[in-house]
Amino acid sequence: MLRRSLLTLCVALVAALANAAPKQIDLLITGGTVLTMAGPTIERGSVAIDDGKIVAVGLSSDIDRNYTAKTTIDARGKAVMPGLINTHTHVPMTLFRGIADDRDLMDWLQNFIFPAEAKNVTRDFVRAGTRLAAAEMIRSGTTTFTDMYYFESDIADETKKAGLRAVLGETLIDFPAPDNKTWDAAIDYMRGYVKQWKGDRLVTPAFAPHAPFTVSREHLIQVRALATELGVPILIHVSETKNELQQVAEKQNGMTPGKYLDSINFLGPDVVAAHGVWLTAEEQAIFAKKKTGVAHCPESNMMLASGIAPVVDMLHAGINVGLGTDGPAGSNNNLDMLEEAASAARLAKVSKGDPKAMSAHAALEMATICGARVLGMDKRIGSLEAGKQADVIVIDLQQPKIQPVYNVESAIVYAASGSAVDTTIVDGKILMRGGKVLTVDVPAAVAKAKQIRDAVLQSLKK
Amino acid sequence: MLRRSLLTLCVALVAALANAAPKQIDLLITGGTVLTMAGPTIERGSVAIDDGKIVAVGLSSDIDRNYTAKTTIDARGKAVMPGLINTHTHVPMTLFRGIADDRDLMDWLQNFIFPAEAKNVTRDFVRAGTRLAAAEMIRSGTTTFTDMYYFESDIADETKKAGLRAVLGETLIDFPAPDNKTWDAAIDYMRGYVKQWKGDRLVTPAFAPHAPFTVSREHLIQVRALATELGVPILIHVSETKNELQQVAEKQNGMTPGKYLDSINFLGPDVVAAHGVWLTAEEQAIFAKKKTGVAHCPESNMMLASGIAPVVDMLHAGINVGLGTDGPAGSNNNLDMLEEAASAARLAKVSKGDPKAMSAHAALEMATICGARVLGMDKRIGSLEAGKQADVIVIDLQQPKIQPVYNVESAIVYAASGSAVDTTIVDGKILMRGGKVLTVDVPAAVAKAKQIRDAVLQSLKK
Repeated sequence: MLRRSLLTLCVALVAALANAAPKQIDLLITGGTVLTMAGPTIERGSVAIDDGKIVAVGLSSDIDRNYTAKTTIDARGKAVMPGLINTHTHVPMTLFRGIADDRDLMDWLQNFIFPAEAKNVTRDFVRAGTRLAAAEMIRSGTTTFTDMYYFESDIADETKKAGLRAVLGETLIDFPAPDNKTWDAAIDYMRGYVKQWKGDRLVTPAFAPHAPFTVSREHLIQVRALATELGVPILIHVSETKNELQQVAEKQNGMTPGKYLDSINFLGPDVVAAHGVWLTAEEQAIFAKKKTGVAHCPESNMMLASGIAPVVDMLHAGINVGLGTDGPAGSNNNLDMLEEAASAARLAKVSKGDPKAMSAHAALEMATICGARVLGMDKRIGSLEAGKQADVIVIDLQQPKIQPVYNVESAIVYAASGSAVDTTIVDGKILMRGGKVLTVDVPAAVAKAKQIRDAVLQSLKK
Repeated sequence: MLRRSLLTLCVALVAALANAAPKQIDLLITGGTVLTMAGPTIERGSVAIDDGKIVAVGLSSDIDRNYTAKTTIDARGKAVMPGLINTHTHVPMTLFRGIADDRDLMDWLQNFIFPAEAKNVTRDFVRAGTRLAAAEMIRSGTTTFTDMYYFESDIADETKKAGLRAVLGETLIDFPAPDNKTWDAAIDYMRGYVKQWKGDRLVTPAFAPHAPFTVSREHLIQVRALATELGVPILIHVSETKNELQQVAEKQNGMTPGKYLDSINFLGPDVVAAHGVWLTAEEQAIFAKKKTGVAHCPESNMMLASGIAPVVDMLHAGINVGLGTDGPAGSNNNLDMLEEAASAARLAKVSKGDPKAMSAHAALEMATICGARVLGMDKRIGSLEAGKQADVIVIDLQQPKIQPVYNVESAIVYAASGSAVDTTIVDGKILMRGGKVLTVDVPAAVAKAKQIRDAVLQSLKK
């Protein structure tokens, strides 16, 4: 009887000690203003991270005593929030940044971008461009990006090396591409690419049929079927310019691009439509019903004079809308998602004639959790919640540009820009700390970018 | 005869030596990509500065051998350009940054800004706000700013301490202001203010009657006469919102604000009209004829949903148009002139449906030499030319966000932001070097801003 009581006591003591003893974890971010994007902002909050995942979020006074961390980041005076999610870009085009701005779209495409791509885009080129873009994205707090380009398997490899998360769509188009000269070769490439990367922790391979006017109906139907078969998402430009509307109408019995895609059962929750500038109310209802997300790219739409996307209407219609920078060659020209969020809010306000049309909070949602929904990844990323992957950024609020702070969301969207990001974490791994990028050799990436610029300029002279 | 020949020889030798010997100067900026804004861009150029003025601009290979400088700035890999000129802001409002965004203008003004100003704006407040704003402006490459606020003589004092150049307009308005409770007191203040500051090397005092709908006809006529008498410029908000149009029309026989001001002979080359969002073609012709410049504030106009200013039309009409950030409280919320230039170009493009509507070059002109013209200071500042005051900035182009550079103007406007500014020089004095602000105690300014924020929040609870 005594032995039994002693045993019970011991078990109880061990249990109590186990409860009391702080749990060992990889990383603790403590003392910051935590924007979870899943509930109210936490002043003096902590985010506990272990094995790539968030294990707890809450008041530092509650969280910190429960954990001892291998690494602790002091976030006092800083904001802690989910990493930014860029839902549409073309990262290797960083190497064409500013090559031909302030021109008509067709002049820009036909006299600069297409010849420059035809003559220069190789595996080496896309790798160099991805490294440069990765440095820029890590520096400015993007943790997940969505790409449409060529040699996407090489882009995937560099993305993984940089430690970023990405949905990477191999571009499929009805004319010879830099990597695959024929449609069938591109489809073959896709099968191998998906086989190699599907299930990767960071990289999600995707199909990226270029647009409804550059890929035939038969090819779009083929892509739709293959994407379903292989279980990977589809990225596509939709309704970006008036010119596209005209071309689609001419070829597809007067249909608008969104209606046309719906008519061939192309749309679904696994499709990300970039731009959607000219989506009609009817198309918006279809997109909402089919759960097809839209990547809103306000700076690109402004820069190329494509038009002003009906972003407020799309949100009201129930469409998942994320933010995208688009490629940094003539259509932005940078990958700064905080600047993009500010532009999104400001453009929505002025175009609606209503300063309440889009709040700082709504813009940050588009840049985080709504972007995750667009990519079908909101169970894994987009907010700071226990169980999600640890994609987290820390923003230094102490710059004179940002102070004083009355409202942290307003400060981040309207006053800060990407340069205020201090720390970038993806999948629990620190990619930048104290403004220093750790996973990309930045001087080497910049030096290589200059070399390639010289070669590109040379190639255009020929 | 021999003595005479020897004398001649000596004189010739001395002259030759004087020509050959490098001239001693204060400052040489060498090896940069020099955007003079007065001619073609100079690759590997130098700017020689002495006694606050530019003494030479040209190829480093030509310039450098002619001078020995007390201080030399190596600008290799960097851009060198005229300092940015902000033609419209309210710098002490940095202390209200983000206090109440995403609201209707009247809600914002009547429930937040007016009560917050009435309860908090003192001499101490405007001085603290000016220090904070000065730190932000120096950090982001603004060398001249244009202010409309209260206690402007205190703002002038802090501006001079920070080493910035400014046109500082004391706000005159038909209701009790934080500094002067009556109109007559404000006019008295103005006389003293102008007497104290007129002729200062850095500060130009100005009248700032608030707007055509908040200052009576009689008072506007009085201000116009006094400004002419005292020889100082006038700053005024004109045609910013539709609400203003309605109010002016009701009181002034259906006239639009610009027409109304012209009808009382208010306009002239010494008037700076902020916003001009709703200026009609007829008014634009009048402004061009009267040489009244416009401060275009695209981010404020977007943020407050005031409308899209017809900036391209105004430029075509021959109006001098500069760029302004407006105040950083609900209408921006920062003082970054490079971000403003990008927004100006992008908004002009999308609103005109033409990517050629405003080039990076045109946006930079607005931010520099055109801004100088708006302020009537283009003989002294706004471009890098021998004889002008040495207001110069150096921008680091080596960030991954900016590289590679195909076109330096595009890189500065569309890829860089104020955080890329490396060195800021006003009147030949270095205010920031290597990103470190030298003339403002930044941590102290930020600490004071936080203190004031707490007091403001407390005051609004009462």
